[in-house]
Amino acid sequence: MDQLFHLPLSPACRKVRLALAEKGREVELVEERDWEEREDFLIMNPAGELPVLREEDGAVICGSGPITEYLDDIDPDKPLLPGDAHARAEARRLVEWFDRKFSEEVSTPLLYEKVTKRFMGASQGGGSPDMGVVRITLHNVRFHLDYISYLMEDRRWLAGEELSLADLAAAAHLSCLDYIGDVPWAQYPQAKDWYVRLKSRPSFRGLLADHLPGMPPPRVYANLDF
Amino acid sequence: MDQLFHLPLSPACRKVRLALAEKGREVELVEERDWEEREDFLIMNPAGELPVLREEDGAVICGSGPITEYLDDIDPDKPLLPGDAHARAEARRLVEWFDRKFSEEVSTPLLYEKVTKRFMGASQGGGSPDMGVVRITLHNVRFHLDYISYLMEDRRWLAGEELSLADLAAAAHLSCLDYIGDVPWAQYPQAKDWYVRLKSRPSFRGLLADHLPGMPPPRVYANLDF
Repeated sequence: MDQLFHLPLSPACRKVRLALAEKGREVELVEERDWEEREDFLIMNPAGELPVLREEDGAVICGSGPITEYLDDIDPDKPLLPGDAHARAEARRLVEWFDRKFSEEVSTPLLYEKVTKRFMGASQGGGSPDMGVVRITLHNVRFHLDYISYLMEDRRWLAGEELSLADLAAAAHLSCLDYIGDVPWAQYPQAKDWYVRLKSRPSFRGLLADHLPGMPPPRVYANLDF
Repeated sequence: MDQLFHLPLSPACRKVRLALAEKGREVELVEERDWEEREDFLIMNPAGELPVLREEDGAVICGSGPITEYLDDIDPDKPLLPGDAHARAEARRLVEWFDRKFSEEVSTPLLYEKVTKRFMGASQGGGSPDMGVVRITLHNVRFHLDYISYLMEDRRWLAGEELSLADLAAAAHLSCLDYIGDVPWAQYPQAKDWYVRLKSRPSFRGLLADHLPGMPPPRVYANLDF
């Protein structure tokens, strides 16, 4: 079976897990602590980054962008990037919005402080979260929830009338924050309605079953009525 | 005519200029100082980032990833991502390598210190470069030149036997460093040979003609025999 090297609370890995599940493609999940720089992992991906997809025949695809584009390349039915060239460009714009802008302003620093540092040894930079960084990211997340709400005013999904990779990317980031209880959903009913629809999809089940040792999610994390 | 909102020494913008030229698509270049957050620019791209392609009919494509994928979507002849799905994934892996890893470790901090701060007002954060940051980036660039040399040992172009977007992405970053005279080419003959072949292509001419006011490039910048 194909293997996906991943970490449970990595937004890039979650985006790929959602994409694989939407495509109906089963994989074995292999947890990889990328900061440990395991030699066999660096041989697969010299950039040392997650996720990495290793196919049964040994072929390796590195990176969430290349993997998701690859999934559409080999299986264009039920595309992750549906519609014409302009619709695809709009979906890719929003994927970049979340994978770069949201990542820089919110998820990368927040998850590093609250999750990664907990699993790292002290010599690797582990320890208590820097609450100053945490506060800034929790301020920034509101701007992005506003943007989702704004898009939902006249769209069914983020990039238009059809579900696309943009929704999976955004939900991948927000689901990680949701795991640590840091999304003020109640104040953003339109964004919440969009997220409930995603969370109800069969492709989301794997994410909702995640359970980090010593770090359980809040009760509402896996709850569809949150 | 289509317009490309850009900055001359932005690697993301240069990648798109090279891609447009390889496709034989002419555009009007419009310089946009993104840090000034011009309102009409933010309406086109709420992320406030360059490059942005505005087509003659008003359609807008934001971001270097979405634009280059769009160019292949609308004109699949002479693709920027040639070959089968695995070849395309390998080219996209290397595009990410340069647009994320090289960008973080070298070009973004180096160009910010040596170029952007020069054109910013003092109130916007302008001023002299931080030489500590400059030194670190000039150390890091050697690792990437080693990686290019390693790939060139058994490939004609970065991603394989055919020119691809990976070459354009890498050359876009390195050409910006070359403009400020910061690439130790002499010590990396294989990387230099690869860059000479790119620099000789007609698509490179626009980049070699760039000339920032008050900041001329070194003589070798536009020279094919450097």
